[in-house]
Amino acid sequence: MPVGTQATVKAITPENLVELGAEIILANTYHLFLRPGHELIRDLGGLHRFMNWDRPILTDSGGFQIFSLRELAKITEEGASFKSHLDGSSLFLSPEDAVAVQEALGADIMMCLDTCIPYPADRNETLAATELTSRWAGRSRATQKETGQLLFGIVQGGMYPDMRALAVEQLLEIGFDGYALGGLSVGESRELMLEITEHTAQLLPQEYSIYLMGVGTPEDLVESVFRGVDMFDCVMPTRNARNGMLFTSRGRVVIKNSQYSNDPRPPDESCGCYTCRNYSRAYLRHLYMSREILAYHLNTIHNLYYFVSLMGAMREAIENDTFLQFRNNFYALRQENVYYT
Amino acid sequence: MPVGTQATVKAITPENLVELGAEIILANTYHLFLRPGHELIRDLGGLHRFMNWDRPILTDSGGFQIFSLRELAKITEEGASFKSHLDGSSLFLSPEDAVAVQEALGADIMMCLDTCIPYPADRNETLAATELTSRWAGRSRATQKETGQLLFGIVQGGMYPDMRALAVEQLLEIGFDGYALGGLSVGESRELMLEITEHTAQLLPQEYSIYLMGVGTPEDLVESVFRGVDMFDCVMPTRNARNGMLFTSRGRVVIKNSQYSNDPRPPDESCGCYTCRNYSRAYLRHLYMSREILAYHLNTIHNLYYFVSLMGAMREAIENDTFLQFRNNFYALRQENVYYT
Repeated sequence: MPVGTQATVKAITPENLVELGAEIILANTYHLFLRPGHELIRDLGGLHRFMNWDRPILTDSGGFQIFSLRELAKITEEGASFKSHLDGSSLFLSPEDAVAVQEALGADIMMCLDTCIPYPADRNETLAATELTSRWAGRSRATQKETGQLLFGIVQGGMYPDMRALAVEQLLEIGFDGYALGGLSVGESRELMLEITEHTAQLLPQEYSIYLMGVGTPEDLVESVFRGVDMFDCVMPTRNARNGMLFTSRGRVVIKNSQYSNDPRPPDESCGCYTCRNYSRAYLRHLYMSREILAYHLNTIHNLYYFVSLMGAMREAIENDTFLQFRNNFYALRQENVYYT
Repeated sequence: MPVGTQATVKAITPENLVELGAEIILANTYHLFLRPGHELIRDLGGLHRFMNWDRPILTDSGGFQIFSLRELAKITEEGASFKSHLDGSSLFLSPEDAVAVQEALGADIMMCLDTCIPYPADRNETLAATELTSRWAGRSRATQKETGQLLFGIVQGGMYPDMRALAVEQLLEIGFDGYALGGLSVGESRELMLEITEHTAQLLPQEYSIYLMGVGTPEDLVESVFRGVDMFDCVMPTRNARNGMLFTSRGRVVIKNSQYSNDPRPPDESCGCYTCRNYSRAYLRHLYMSREILAYHLNTIHNLYYFVSLMGAMREAIENDTFLQFRNNFYALRQENVYYT
């Protein structure tokens, strides 16, 4: 799932997204709350019309940005106080506000405001933040209007399996349309991330979508799906594209490397994206070295196509009951990594 | 005619160009000579394949960039010595080299290397540069291989009508596939630019394309076509797009202005471009204020569509013998400029 912070998926158009197979995008509540403001977007007909996207939109709650972008964020029972990263003005967002903002935006899937637990954190700190998140989740569900918009709860609980279980229990008690795993990929080892993911996913009933927030590499996606995750969001495909890193079926291509200066091949010879169908590594390297905007555009199209296709291939493998074979093949191709850096 | 310095029209794809009606693009010989190099592009199948563009490409000679980007350029009878703006290395380009580079790129229309005359310049300086340009033009024509590529001569002569006449005479004597007017829009008044343009265009036989280099605004295009010009190149539509200025049938829209913050209308209500069909001024302002790459993309599509459509409308008016009516209407719409800044 691509990420679009400023009412856009960076460097590409909605038509590009449709062409590469994206079925849903994410918009950041925090960013749109600050600029241009959710009321302005509502008055202009909602986020779908504003950004010319008629497929589903998932909005995050704003919590992650509040805690990660601002050192001065302060949490109380009531909500989160923070300063705008744009102009330093003091702002406040309660769980009720977060839902209201997402309703105004017209999100198809909304997220409850949650607290973020730093890593490492001790049991007391983790318990307090986890229970506050659950109380906020209850308030979020209670304030929601009957608009047909879905609302997901976010499972916190840090790196403590018993607290993850507590969080799941409390959220299931409230009852949501889907469940997200928060507080992962925050500095812990990959092994621990996968362990907590697997543990938590197994506690959630199979009929709900499980959404792992902020993850990750292609390898992370494969391992997390293997452990029961259905949905992801991450800046990695788009941000790395703008930094000149292309994901391929055989590994990563760092396009500025001089080995590609006269390479007539597409980034990934087995890829069917617009970029791979029409451009050589030599051309993409030239654009990147020349800091041309088209470099960001073409690289982003490729990386998103790769991630979207990877998710599609995993869905198909699950339906055909061939996921283990898919996973083996995924790694086997990477072992043949002869010319990619 | 759009300008693409680095083997791309900045911020958009070839498909965008086809959709907005562009039939030819310009590539800068100087930039491609330096990076990635014309031989590399030739070895990869030529510029058309390199940048995925199968319609005509016009290349400039490199002269303008050599003289405008480098203070240290030095002209001799033999050619131009200059330093790369990328790494400071010393380079040399003769008229023969300039043709060879453009042949390697595979340009459909090539330009002779010319000298640029500063403004103001006295008669002696102007005469020397004009005659050197003519001698270089002769060497360019003589060195050209039989590849079917067209070669245009560039008329210098500064702001002196008699020297423009001399330049035209000398170039017609050599014989080219088309003629460009160089050395205009270099600091002289608009009135003088149009006067010299009209004077020079009238000296050239009607059967040749007349190409006014480096011009200009929509108003400049209308006035220059009125005076006999057929072709233009200018960074104005693309560069101004990236700076947030949109050209419309009723005047200019500076998209960052706060008056557009909640304006649901497209940039130009009478425009059929992709941007105007799908996005509001409010959204485009939001993207621009957020420094989103998509702002540059959408603004560029609009401005190029506007310029290409303007040229198309003028062609049609000329064919229908209604150009004066077209010109009156063009200005009348601008006088109704009630809400554009």
